[in-house]
Amino acid sequence: MNSKYKVLKFKKGKFENVEDLVSIEEPLEISLRYNDGENWITKSLSITMRTPGHDEDLVRGFLFNEQIIQNIEDIKSIESFGDKVGQYNIQNKILVTLNNSQNVNISKIKRDFLTNSSCGVCGKSSLDALEITKKEKTPKLNPKLRKDIIIKSPSILRKNQSEFAKTGGIHASGLFSSDGNLISLREDVGRHNALDKIVGDSLLKNSLQPNDQFITCSGRLNFELVQKVLMTNIGLMIGVGAPTSLAIDLANRFDMSLIGFVKEDSFNIYTNNQKVIVE
Amino acid sequence: MNSKYKVLKFKKGKFENVEDLVSIEEPLEISLRYNDGENWITKSLSITMRTPGHDEDLVRGFLFNEQIIQNIEDIKSIESFGDKVGQYNIQNKILVTLNNSQNVNISKIKRDFLTNSSCGVCGKSSLDALEITKKEKTPKLNPKLRKDIIIKSPSILRKNQSEFAKTGGIHASGLFSSDGNLISLREDVGRHNALDKIVGDSLLKNSLQPNDQFITCSGRLNFELVQKVLMTNIGLMIGVGAPTSLAIDLANRFDMSLIGFVKEDSFNIYTNNQKVIVE
Repeated sequence: MNSKYKVLKFKKGKFENVEDLVSIEEPLEISLRYNDGENWITKSLSITMRTPGHDEDLVRGFLFNEQIIQNIEDIKSIESFGDKVGQYNIQNKILVTLNNSQNVNISKIKRDFLTNSSCGVCGKSSLDALEITKKEKTPKLNPKLRKDIIIKSPSILRKNQSEFAKTGGIHASGLFSSDGNLISLREDVGRHNALDKIVGDSLLKNSLQPNDQFITCSGRLNFELVQKVLMTNIGLMIGVGAPTSLAIDLANRFDMSLIGFVKEDSFNIYTNNQKVIVE
Repeated sequence: MNSKYKVLKFKKGKFENVEDLVSIEEPLEISLRYNDGENWITKSLSITMRTPGHDEDLVRGFLFNEQIIQNIEDIKSIESFGDKVGQYNIQNKILVTLNNSQNVNISKIKRDFLTNSSCGVCGKSSLDALEITKKEKTPKLNPKLRKDIIIKSPSILRKNQSEFAKTGGIHASGLFSSDGNLISLREDVGRHNALDKIVGDSLLKNSLQPNDQFITCSGRLNFELVQKVLMTNIGLMIGVGAPTSLAIDLANRFDMSLIGFVKEDSFNIYTNNQKVIVE
């Protein structure tokens, strides 16, 4: 699934308003109904951010790969349920009923999974749920950047990555000042970890100055990464790759400027574009 | 952190034994010690697969970004603890003691996080923990592939990705027969979801034939992806990008052949290389 989004595209020295297709990211809450020998129990098992479509395949494979079921016969039924929510009008909840089989790994369920009953991310619009927790943390003043600083920041990140040059297989996040100086850089096999690391470093050094800083991440931009940057009150985030729908929606909601697909002579501004560029 | 691994590299028509640097992936278990108003409570909060180094930054940023703490003063101390484990001889457990502050979001901790006390992934070697659950699921017969099939499989994947061509921002997994035919393809913003989807599809269609199949994934290969493929008993996995250390170690342990960095005229075989190639 994908959706059209308005993009301010900079290419070969010119800005242009275009529409781009963006991959949809939405939460899916997987619930399990099983008989523990005495009673039927329904448990919320896991929430995953996924691209809607083939949700039943996802759930079958997830339960098998997590060793909760041994084979397909352990599944009695799979049904999507709940209101159709959000702008894509889809169900974000799915219930798997298991056969009362000794194959089902009940102790595994009890041990490794969480009943996240009050999360609320899937039951209503995920953005509404987030808005409650974010409250007044909205970035109020975004830095404005020169175009060349936007284009250079991923290569500055890469040049300063000590690990990437060696292994070719590690992500990075960088905290930059609005004049393009790299303040903090961290690498990790997990994109979210690299971002947590620069935020942790900046908290310790008391070096966060949201009004005059931005963050650049290697790879693609998803909901989780934008959510983490929002917590810092930094209002400008750059990704080397594509953003997901939910990354854009979330940035939009909190007036964060989101820039993606940064290449040598081009980039896309997905949100809040009037605030971001200095000539 | 990185480490040297032996690689059988195919490049410009020749095989060569070389050593490559690989980014290290290891689990980190984050525990929290806090006062709930009456008692001091210690809870295992989260396990993340990370590249060791700057673990304290990671934990500070994680707690802040997850809104468990409001600022750095909420943290009293951070200490790594537990035995030094695994081949890199590092501590994979970290304890954060919080000040008894009303800033600390106790209800958030109780609601959103899991006490995973019996997981065991961090306390001893993560591979030992996994071996217990995997048992006799070791792939016994791997398919052998022609070199051209290895090289072509990522481009076959990409050509058949309906979404990637549109958005440029979505991962894919493909199940292939050993003669290079694509059996199942699924796309998702999450790599692990795309893989769960092809496994779920194959379970439903009863189309898994591990001895004669392999799986190709876009992007990099980490522990989680290899673990999922292991469950299918398929013994050959191809990634477009770099594998992590733990992906290689896990594949090695279960005699899975792991191939990465597939390009137009080259690829790297990381494990089990004597079983994989047909001339």
